[in-house]
Amino acid sequence: MQRALFAEFLGTLILVACGIGAGIMGTNLAPGLPGLTLLACSLTTGLILWLLITLLGPLSGAHINPAVTLYFALRGEIAPRAALAYLPAQIAGAAVAVLLVHAMFALPPVQVAATARGGAALALSEGVATFGLMLTIAGSQRHAPGQLAALVGAWITAAFWFTGSASFANPAVTFARMFSDTFTGIRPADAPLYMLAEVAGAALGALTLGKLFPR
Amino acid sequence: MQRALFAEFLGTLILVACGIGAGIMGTNLAPGLPGLTLLACSLTTGLILWLLITLLGPLSGAHINPAVTLYFALRGEIAPRAALAYLPAQIAGAAVAVLLVHAMFALPPVQVAATARGGAALALSEGVATFGLMLTIAGSQRHAPGQLAALVGAWITAAFWFTGSASFANPAVTFARMFSDTFTGIRPADAPLYMLAEVAGAALGALTLGKLFPR
Amino acid sequence: MQRALFAEFLGTLILVACGIGAGIMGTNLAPGLPGLTLLACSLTTGLILWLLITLLGPLSGAHINPAVTLYFALRGEIAPRAALAYLPAQIAGAAVAVLLVHAMFALPPVQVAATARGGAALALSEGVATFGLMLTIAGSQRHAPGQLAALVGAWITAAFWFTGSASFANPAVTFARMFSDTFTGIRPADAPLYMLAEVAGAALGALTLGKLFPR
Amino acid sequence: MQRALFAEFLGTLILVACGIGAGIMGTNLAPGLPGLTLLACSLTTGLILWLLITLLGPLSGAHINPAVTLYFALRGEIAPRAALAYLPAQIAGAAVAVLLVHAMFALPPVQVAATARGGAALALSEGVATFGLMLTIAGSQRHAPGQLAALVGAWITAAFWFTGSASFANPAVTFARMFSDTFTGIRPADAPLYMLAEVAGAALGALTLGKLFPR
Repeated sequence: MQRALFAEFLGTLILVACGIGAGIMGTNLAPGLPGLTLLACSLTTGLILWLLITLLGPLSGAHINPAVTLYFALRGEIAPRAALAYLPAQIAGAAVAVLLVHAMFALPPVQVAATARGGAALALSEGVATFGLMLTIAGSQRHAPGQLAALVGAWITAAFWFTGSASFANPAVTFARMFSDTFTGIRPADAPLYMLAEVAGAALGALTLGKLFPR
Repeated sequence: MQRALFAEFLGTLILVACGIGAGIMGTNLAPGLPGLTLLACSLTTGLILWLLITLLGPLSGAHINPAVTLYFALRGEIAPRAALAYLPAQIAGAAVAVLLVHAMFALPPVQVAATARGGAALALSEGVATFGLMLTIAGSQRHAPGQLAALVGAWITAAFWFTGSASFANPAVTFARMFSDTFTGIRPADAPLYMLAEVAGAALGALTLGKLFPR
Repeated sequence: MQRALFAEFLGTLILVACGIGAGIMGTNLAPGLPGLTLLACSLTTGLILWLLITLLGPLSGAHINPAVTLYFALRGEIAPRAALAYLPAQIAGAAVAVLLVHAMFALPPVQVAATARGGAALALSEGVATFGLMLTIAGSQRHAPGQLAALVGAWITAAFWFTGSASFANPAVTFARMFSDTFTGIRPADAPLYMLAEVAGAALGALTLGKLFPR
Repeated sequence: MQRALFAEFLGTLILVACGIGAGIMGTNLAPGLPGLTLLACSLTTGLILWLLITLLGPLSGAHINPAVTLYFALRGEIAPRAALAYLPAQIAGAAVAVLLVHAMFALPPVQVAATARGGAALALSEGVATFGLMLTIAGSQRHAPGQLAALVGAWITAAFWFTGSASFANPAVTFARMFSDTFTGIRPADAPLYMLAEVAGAALGALTLGKLFPR
């Protein structure tokens, strides 16, 4: 169990650092062209998800995302006690990622993001992005377990672009980005709605996807 | 059968939402550089095709494209009755995708596209793109069935660039894009020729590819 | 044999159309940023190589490149008579590709390229690009035959960038590009040196790579 | 052993040439947009790593990186004598790469880089990038040996973006880039700190990763 919790901590740390760091690097090197930064964020995050789920999956399932843990708990694929233990490990990883990535770019360690990401449209986007992540997991488990890691990466890379919310799809990521006033930041006032949409997307997935992809 | 129809509905929905949504996001984030938007659309659509065909293929064959359904019907790989049932599921998925993606980007739900895509050159392009899709399917079925999903994605990503038509290669996609006045839209007056070219490319594929790739 | 020759014709046609077409599309959509066009050309060409070699390899070996045919002939892996028959099929495919891609973009069917690509540095580049292609083929045959198609694509995508010549690495491609005055064109006066470098790279590969990767 | 040393020489040569060459090409074709050059460098380097490790791994392990050799030596997976023999082969490959890539771009053969890359933040970045490379190797060896080559490529592509140092993660690469005053260059005065961070990251990996990924 200790190794599983450490895997959740480390995996979330690397995932969050990747997204925030790529956003900073992109803004530095293509300041007038946010589309290029989004391209870099989406491609690198997809690759890192493939890597992390492949390497850490055997240790903890590599949820590295409280919404995924919720999904598995609602489906009965992880015990409630274990699910509750995953959450602080994920949040701790996300918090350390913020400190680490800001240190690597010589920025103030903790910031308050100013980027507004509010409104019903973005909440819908974020719910769709998270529901699609659950669809990818459920479908891969059923029909292509050996490709689950890569397909999760593919979903997130694409969802960065076609949902308007830039597809955080992960409450630990949303939590971390409140504290980084950079490309991928989110104003704290807007974070709860994002998290709510992520939880709703995961719960909807847990309730409905068993029909399409029975275990 | 019901599950197959739902898979066609859902798959077409996600495919269409991906293409239109990535086009909107790209235009928002790189307004003066349509080449970057095309890059994002082409990469994300390729990834989503790989994902959808992998996950939904076992349920319905994952045509998610009336031209593909026509191709399989002409080859006798799907019964005419089933093929006819696929069409409304695909069109419905495409229609819902338009509503969903516009809602995610806070745009008017139904629009009429103004982008002109007419003339013989684009019709030829669209026929080539669709014929190449059938070539990819026929060749993969024969020589690399386990890679079919990824190779279809590869074909479409490339064809976005080297056929002048941006490679819709899918009448349900063409149908949907009439109703989105955004990057990937098509003027309703130009849609019939696109659809005709797609049908012609698929039919030509069904008639000729059996020689190169016998079942 | 007839099917093999048709596969060489068709494969070279698609490969050449992809490179030239992506260059035209990129120039249309990112006129002031040739780096973006090169990115599109390199990624799409890599994907198309993976696709073509996977689907056509079982029919003809999917050389779709006279330099590759020369390499296999020098290694004794193809009979001289068959090698000689491949050449006109490849050249014909390249010629038809020029006509097709220009028709798809509504450009004059045959053009004379004006882009200067001369000098010793580019000849060296082109030799390195072609030698590396042979290294990829020889190494994959020995250690990873199931990944040969994808690795050839990976090599060409990378070599587009790090050899100064944009890595044609294929005399049929060089032949075709003399007749397209677009992004990937080459002035006829400069083509012979490119072709010479490609032949030299392939021959050097055939003579030396057997030591590193014995059959 | 001779073949292993030649593989280390050749692999490091190609890896270094790829990074430096893509940087030059990107600067030529997108002079005002370094983000696009970084995208090209990161994608091509990732692809080349996948290729080189797949093809040369069976010959030498395909370290092509003194930090990786150090990691394996500390873990007892390579004899100290062999490890010491790898180093000059890698350095020689890196040196020849500089000459070759400058020749391919018609630049002065040996240059002194002027790009400042100093300070604690970049040293931390470089240590993180190298530690993550060891994590990728250790985890792949344990859970996905058949994907090690591709995952190493994925890590480096991502780390280019999210560590502030552009992720050299390789003392032979750092050595070479002192002698190229181009996009990926590093001022000689700053190279020792980079190398120190790389060695530290590799050593930390060797000391700690056995707990997470026991052999």
